[in-house]
Amino acid sequence: MGVVHRFIGKDGAFAWEGVEVETYDRGGAMGGTKQVLLGSRDGSVHFGLRYYEIEPGGQSSFDRHGHDHGVYILRGKARVMLGWDVAEVGVGDVIYIPPNEEHQFENIGDEPLGFLCAVPPRD
Amino acid sequence: MGVVHRFIGKDGAFAWEGVEVETYDRGGAMGGTKQVLLGSRDGSVHFGLRYYEIEPGGQSSFDRHGHDHGVYILRGKARVMLGWDVAEVGVGDVIYIPPNEEHQFENIGDEPLGFLCAVPPRD
Repeated sequence: MGVVHRFIGKDGAFAWEGVEVETYDRGGAMGGTKQVLLGSRDGSVHFGLRYYEIEPGGQSSFDRHGHDHGVYILRGKARVMLGWDVAEVGVGDVIYIPPNEEHQFENIGDEPLGFLCAVPPRD
Repeated sequence: MGVVHRFIGKDGAFAWEGVEVETYDRGGAMGGTKQVLLGSRDGSVHFGLRYYEIEPGGQSSFDRHGHDHGVYILRGKARVMLGWDVAEVGVGDVIYIPPNEEHQFENIGDEPLGFLCAVPPRD
């Protein structure tokens, strides 16, 4: 069965029907929340899709692992570390993080940083 | 190596650095373009990420296949067929299309319908 999670965000907040807002503070992440938009709960077989939001001054975890990420920035501005590279990214930018590359997102703007993150099912 | 495809859309258009705008007219699709945001070109191992845009009155292909899709609506409004169900969806809505379920998106708004589509690598 197909699944629709409707966007129910108001007043600038990002939220979806049937999706829990989880605290995201693993591995040194600060000021963040995580919402699993698609995952095993939906019967998703080959990938998951999450929405992460990081407050101004906050950061995602410093990560390095065997699976890859595809990221799409939905709101705000970030400094992203990709291995030895650093890039500043904003709304609409797309980032691919290959397996085993160190990565971290830091909110460098005045508003929340929000991004979609596609992951393979093992994550 | 990580990859960044910067958003370079202007005047309402959606476009990214290093990403070709392809005609999307396979399988009965009408009025559409496709942009591969992440794929094998980027070394993406476990999934691909595409952006599809459908003009008002246009539609995606009528599809049924063994892999699944994760869709995030970025602009416009659609009527989406999911097996025997039909839903109207708009900006921010998330849709999971499981393997072997018939699906089609029809633009029912006055502006372009644009959506991200995550796919496993076989697609």
